[in-house]
Amino acid sequence: MADTPSAKRQRSSKDVPYELIYWPGLPGRGEHVRLLLEEAGAEYTDTARAEDGIKTVLAQIDGENLGDDLNPPPLAPPVLRHGDLLISQTPNILLYLGPRLGLAPKIAEDDDGIYRVNALALTALDGLSNEAHDTHHPIATGLYYEDQKEESKRYAKEYIANRLPKFLGYFERVLKGKASGDGPWLYGGSLTYADLVLFQCIDGVKFAFPNALKRLEGSGDYKGVFGLYDAVKERPKIKAYLASDRRQKYGDGIYRHYPELDEE
Amino acid sequence: MADTPSAKRQRSSKDVPYELIYWPGLPGRGEHVRLLLEEAGAEYTDTARAEDGIKTVLAQIDGENLGDDLNPPPLAPPVLRHGDLLISQTPNILLYLGPRLGLAPKIAEDDDGIYRVNALALTALDGLSNEAHDTHHPIATGLYYEDQKEESKRYAKEYIANRLPKFLGYFERVLKGKASGDGPWLYGGSLTYADLVLFQCIDGVKFAFPNALKRLEGSGDYKGVFGLYDAVKERPKIKAYLASDRRQKYGDGIYRHYPELDEE
Repeated sequence: MADTPSAKRQRSSKDVPYELIYWPGLPGRGEHVRLLLEEAGAEYTDTARAEDGIKTVLAQIDGENLGDDLNPPPLAPPVLRHGDLLISQTPNILLYLGPRLGLAPKIAEDDDGIYRVNALALTALDGLSNEAHDTHHPIATGLYYEDQKEESKRYAKEYIANRLPKFLGYFERVLKGKASGDGPWLYGGSLTYADLVLFQCIDGVKFAFPNALKRLEGSGDYKGVFGLYDAVKERPKIKAYLASDRRQKYGDGIYRHYPELDEE
Repeated sequence: MADTPSAKRQRSSKDVPYELIYWPGLPGRGEHVRLLLEEAGAEYTDTARAEDGIKTVLAQIDGENLGDDLNPPPLAPPVLRHGDLLISQTPNILLYLGPRLGLAPKIAEDDDGIYRVNALALTALDGLSNEAHDTHHPIATGLYYEDQKEESKRYAKEYIANRLPKFLGYFERVLKGKASGDGPWLYGGSLTYADLVLFQCIDGVKFAFPNALKRLEGSGDYKGVFGLYDAVKERPKIKAYLASDRRQKYGDGIYRHYPELDEE
């Protein structure tokens, strides 16, 4: 396939800060993007902290937005702009940033590492972010929680009993496998963005289901996973970030704490 | 980040057929992988057509599988093996195959096209595959449909009323945008794997909700989307494939036809 029209233009357009376009007021899916940028010490702007930032978000997802010459319109935030490039979809943004920020193997003909990291990130997002969201919105994103509360209780019960142990157990297995290498990380013995994704997912479910997570952590069955969580949390740049006002507080986003959905 | 251990080994290991490891008996998520391989005329094996192929699937997702020296274990099929590489997660497999099969821009420092294609594929899979699955399993994958039938009716009603038009409308908008280029395709004026993904998603929801899709197609609001669907279907290799016994029949997979979930 021939170069896309962007090929030449973009060469000169990438020496600029990253621009994260995401809802203010909650960590949400944008938080995964922030953690990469913060760990790497990258220069970036964030609509969550810009005056009228929400207008930028709304303009991107407007039903009349057709994108531009190079970029299709996004359906939903997070959106990343970097020079001429504008892309959406959390795992896609991470895929773009990871190798550039030293948080994944470079994409190269002789190194397939990026596909292994991407698979781990996608799996964490599936089970510990998307499904965690569905615990309070099992019927429709467009309805209020209160209008699907009974279904939420049923979903959350199954989620805590079956899905959480399934995904935690999976990542524990990944950490036991040889491909994870030495140390606390999921792949190749070095920190990758998959570790940051898993950290944020665990942080989110800890907020949403504190009782269930306390029991699961206490079981000792997932020492690797919770060890990874602690190891990310102690990284100097992450630690400083989490203590800063750049870190958004949990609220009405993906991870919500409704006591009636947690175990007793 | 340094080369992963795989870098040297894999150079000599890629001149082999692709191996798709997926459930027999339904198109499922594996179908997206098949469509790329078929359109490209690539050589591949498929556990769905191998004697005892299911044993290969089950060995991969076994709770004791720790992966190998290079590859973390997969959580779920589809899995792709190519030489030393073994990866899971549908959009990740498509990302790997797309550029190699001429169905996406090559991944290169001076061309960001792949991230635009990946975003489109992820969005189609989110709304028209994952959510379509949830119409008959809104509460838990581990429960039977019959045990979540009432919730399914409510989910499907919302899905048909709000989500289907949202996603169809989104792709219609992408097709109207300049980044789609000329012709029926989503990105850059050429067929990419995002088109094949959208084709299969539309084919699936047509099977699941024939009445709703007939109405939506008849509305004339999504001429681009249904035009793309027809254009993919008429591609010689896809046409031959769909008529062959390599194409699995719909059954108890992602796309299921329960008349009570469709509109009247």
